[in-house]
Amino acid sequence: MKPKASVRGLPVYQPGKPLEEVKREFGLEDVIKLASNENPFGCSKQVWPALAEEKDNFYLYPEGSAPELREKLAEHLEADPRRLIFGNGSDEIVQMIARTYLEPGTESVMAEITFPRYETLTRMEGAIPVKVPLRDGIHDLEAMARAVTEKTKIVWICNPNNPTGTIVSHDALSDFLDQLPDHVLVVVDEAYYEYVTDPSYPDTLSLLDYNPRIIVLRTFSKIYGLAAFRIGYGVGHPDVITELNRVREPFNVNRLAQRAALAALDDQAFVTYCRNQNRLGIKKITDKLDEWGLHYFPAHGNFILFDTGYPADEAFEYLLKRGVIVRSGQALGYPTYIRVTVGTEEQNSRFLEVYESFLKAKGKMPTNA
Amino acid sequence: MKPKASVRGLPVYQPGKPLEEVKREFGLEDVIKLASNENPFGCSKQVWPALAEEKDNFYLYPEGSAPELREKLAEHLEADPRRLIFGNGSDEIVQMIARTYLEPGTESVMAEITFPRYETLTRMEGAIPVKVPLRDGIHDLEAMARAVTEKTKIVWICNPNNPTGTIVSHDALSDFLDQLPDHVLVVVDEAYYEYVTDPSYPDTLSLLDYNPRIIVLRTFSKIYGLAAFRIGYGVGHPDVITELNRVREPFNVNRLAQRAALAALDDQAFVTYCRNQNRLGIKKITDKLDEWGLHYFPAHGNFILFDTGYPADEAFEYLLKRGVIVRSGQALGYPTYIRVTVGTEEQNSRFLEVYESFLKAKGKMPTNA
Repeated sequence: MKPKASVRGLPVYQPGKPLEEVKREFGLEDVIKLASNENPFGCSKQVWPALAEEKDNFYLYPEGSAPELREKLAEHLEADPRRLIFGNGSDEIVQMIARTYLEPGTESVMAEITFPRYETLTRMEGAIPVKVPLRDGIHDLEAMARAVTEKTKIVWICNPNNPTGTIVSHDALSDFLDQLPDHVLVVVDEAYYEYVTDPSYPDTLSLLDYNPRIIVLRTFSKIYGLAAFRIGYGVGHPDVITELNRVREPFNVNRLAQRAALAALDDQAFVTYCRNQNRLGIKKITDKLDEWGLHYFPAHGNFILFDTGYPADEAFEYLLKRGVIVRSGQALGYPTYIRVTVGTEEQNSRFLEVYESFLKAKGKMPTNA
Repeated sequence: MKPKASVRGLPVYQPGKPLEEVKREFGLEDVIKLASNENPFGCSKQVWPALAEEKDNFYLYPEGSAPELREKLAEHLEADPRRLIFGNGSDEIVQMIARTYLEPGTESVMAEITFPRYETLTRMEGAIPVKVPLRDGIHDLEAMARAVTEKTKIVWICNPNNPTGTIVSHDALSDFLDQLPDHVLVVVDEAYYEYVTDPSYPDTLSLLDYNPRIIVLRTFSKIYGLAAFRIGYGVGHPDVITELNRVREPFNVNRLAQRAALAALDDQAFVTYCRNQNRLGIKKITDKLDEWGLHYFPAHGNFILFDTGYPADEAFEYLLKRGVIVRSGQALGYPTYIRVTVGTEEQNSRFLEVYESFLKAKGKMPTNA
């Protein structure tokens, strides 16, 4: 009963600490979680009433191909519905892609440091992750192009990148694609797509017509605020989608998630509101970081990675004990950084207050400031 | 962008036809679906109100380890909570097991004919499915034991078997386990466990203490009527569970499914009601099949596989056009059989009426009978 070699010793993903756990552990009542890049504004108010439409269908398997949502999303994206595939979160589509294309003797190219699942799922298939260091926290696409070999099956581009929050531009991505040989699939993970306001950000779907080798990943877990439901999607060439469907679990996307996503898509005003609030939150937090002289990466998603100047776990533990859960950079590859999700105005203020008291405790601020 | 060899040409699972699709296709209003072994009585009335408890948590990722449900289910099963793992349906646990233990050069042993995902997921890992013919529709455990080699990593036992509905007994299973070498994991898929009333049916969990090599799969999709949510579980040795957790997607079981399962577990009266109704339905249908002289397999789940005596698609199409969706044996390996899910009393009557008219159309019944 030995697991196969590629699975033995694989790390188990460490998610952000759940609210309930922190309340239990520290006996706190009022805890805020800015650790998992969830939407602090919740989700559209149209989601809950929409679930009632499924009330009498709980005993029925979902349609794995999600026909109703497929039609609506295709219209929303102005894309051919045959280009879409849905997953139990976009996480599951990352898994499907790895399962379809990777095996021992193959490689996949990714940034060092990026979303850790690309590496884990590559290893799980017995394939080799080839990691190309970020430059100033940004994907180094030139170096990534050079890292592509005959063995390369996939290049992963997380845009905005998690955990740095940086982006590659439309022109840079387009040039990169032009350099790649035909046998490589490029996965552009746009989980934070709807948060980006920078005009240089790629319109990746427009590149799909010329580049059948791209698959774009998006999710309802972030700005749409439906992380509880588990639903994400991929947009790619119909031939790629056909192959992914071979490894897709038949009933992978639950019925309530499909219904919730339909309702959420209808409420674009909520999406716009969240995007705007997020920009205000980023400005508020980064203004303070500037004031304190702390380095941070340009934040294009709904989170900020900044340098505490100390072992990250010090600030992490300090915040945790005071009911503010963030993500320590220790396990993310940035051992002195903290990744904080941009919260509501009130949550951002509380985070900044507690962080200021950490700086004071460290003697970095005048105690009466 | 070629998929790996083990994925190329893999079949895409063909689920039972969805209700909505049949309504659209044939312009029918009143369609009943007896095709996917779903619970015709729906689910517990306690499920819908329980979902309101999650109403403000839709933006939060679920806890993949399902701590609350784990505690409650462990108590219900009288099992150590560390023995449990949850999946996006028990389907996903089948996938996790295959991913953990199978690779090229290994084999997994299964019945011919059984639930098709064991074979598909074995092939997906590049491993070899070794199929051992059923005897009278029942797992031939002696022949399966003989089929085990040094390369065998897994034996799959579907009990009751899908699509035949037959069972292996406690004693037969226990003897079988005694014969197996230590390197083999035995997966006992008990998706229909709660439907079985035969006293010889295994108490597989009681065998777990002596046999760390067993993992039992159960689901909330069948008698609990929660197929829409996607939640199933495995019960095995903590060491096996640890390995499976390495390949588990971090947030694989959605939050609403966990909440629904908690509520469903509390309503054991509903489970008992469904089990009793199911037995009555089986008797009603098999009495008619006896009257008509049609062969069927002993039905221990919530479905009956019976011989139409014609190419199965003839009866399937005849029923379909009259708004009764069943499963044709054509794709299941029983080309003259139909698999019908036991429905409500009304649904069973309607199925039998339409089937009787099929027999008349075939000249097998006096037209005035």
